[in-house]
Amino acid sequence: MSGIRENLKLAKQAQVREEVLKSAAKLFAERGYRAVTVGDIAQDLGFTKSAIYYYFPNKEEILWAITEESYDVYIQLAAETLKKNLPPDEALAAIVHSHAMQVMTRREWTAIFFKDQMEISEKRQKLVRQRQREYAGMIEKVYRAGVEAKLFRDLPIPVVVNSIYGQCNWLYVWYRETGRISPDAVANYQVEILMSGFKA
Amino acid sequence: MSGIRENLKLAKQAQVREEVLKSAAKLFAERGYRAVTVGDIAQDLGFTKSAIYYYFPNKEEILWAITEESYDVYIQLAAETLKKNLPPDEALAAIVHSHAMQVMTRREWTAIFFKDQMEISEKRQKLVRQRQREYAGMIEKVYRAGVEAKLFRDLPIPVVVNSIYGQCNWLYVWYRETGRISPDAVANYQVEILMSGFKA
Repeated sequence: MSGIRENLKLAKQAQVREEVLKSAAKLFAERGYRAVTVGDIAQDLGFTKSAIYYYFPNKEEILWAITEESYDVYIQLAAETLKKNLPPDEALAAIVHSHAMQVMTRREWTAIFFKDQMEISEKRQKLVRQRQREYAGMIEKVYRAGVEAKLFRDLPIPVVVNSIYGQCNWLYVWYRETGRISPDAVANYQVEILMSGFKA
Repeated sequence: MSGIRENLKLAKQAQVREEVLKSAAKLFAERGYRAVTVGDIAQDLGFTKSAIYYYFPNKEEILWAITEESYDVYIQLAAETLKKNLPPDEALAAIVHSHAMQVMTRREWTAIFFKDQMEISEKRQKLVRQRQREYAGMIEKVYRAGVEAKLFRDLPIPVVVNSIYGQCNWLYVWYRETGRISPDAVANYQVEILMSGFKA
């Protein structure tokens, strides 16, 4: 019985932790990281400040958890695609599509990349660059396989990777779900434009 | 004689004003707009603070002058291309190329778009949006002519415009002139990728 109770408790804690991150991401995106206090996050959720401190010792840890989780999501999605052993053009199309979808459907999390990266400590910036290299490495692997298979032009890898980031991440700046084009349709357009550009 | 002297004086003033903007753009990009004082700009140029105040009543006016001049440059370059009455695909390629070049060769000015736009007053934000619409309208005009001429696919205009902005503006994030690829070569890659994507 105590095992079940323990599991329930952990599941509940994971859920609350996620709620804290979601609220913080929203508030950071709206007001800027510096302007938001742990008290604001507590108020937004109807929690006490000490309830937040149970999960995170300070605001920087919250920002860091948001950053880590963002990288986790992008890398995990790409890893799932790679596992399927698709032809390189289909694999890259799938990676671009899910990257674009993430930017559009998790706008607040994306905002933090654009605005609050400089608030992360130098030590952690190194971890960020490591995750960035990991993700870029996955794209590079697929692209090189595609060049090998004569599906893609032999473009410099930084141009390839950053054309994908540019088009997909820029969606954060302009795309609003209130518009007439669905996120899926927009993601498909980005895929089509980039894949035509990469085609051998 | 006094006419000549007056012209020389105005030319000198325009030059000094430009130096102030250049220094300010550099410092804003390095340290963030809020952290820079008019005194810092004066010090960077070896001027007195009152020399700066002769040109700009305050720091916000400097930021605004940088913003206006940036839009002027982009719009003027596109206008020069449009004047040539090139076929739409050549015209759009030229606009993309010069947009990409501007981002790469005036990195500090581009940084201000990314980081300091929220420091501009609401009244001036309206002017910014007007300039943005003007520039986007020029791209739209060329693209529609290209669709008409069956050179381009009939993509939604926001997708077209923002794919261009995404790829070109993202150069600010990643491109450094110290790398192995020249700005011109990178601009050409962006042109090729986008134009393949737009091709009918």
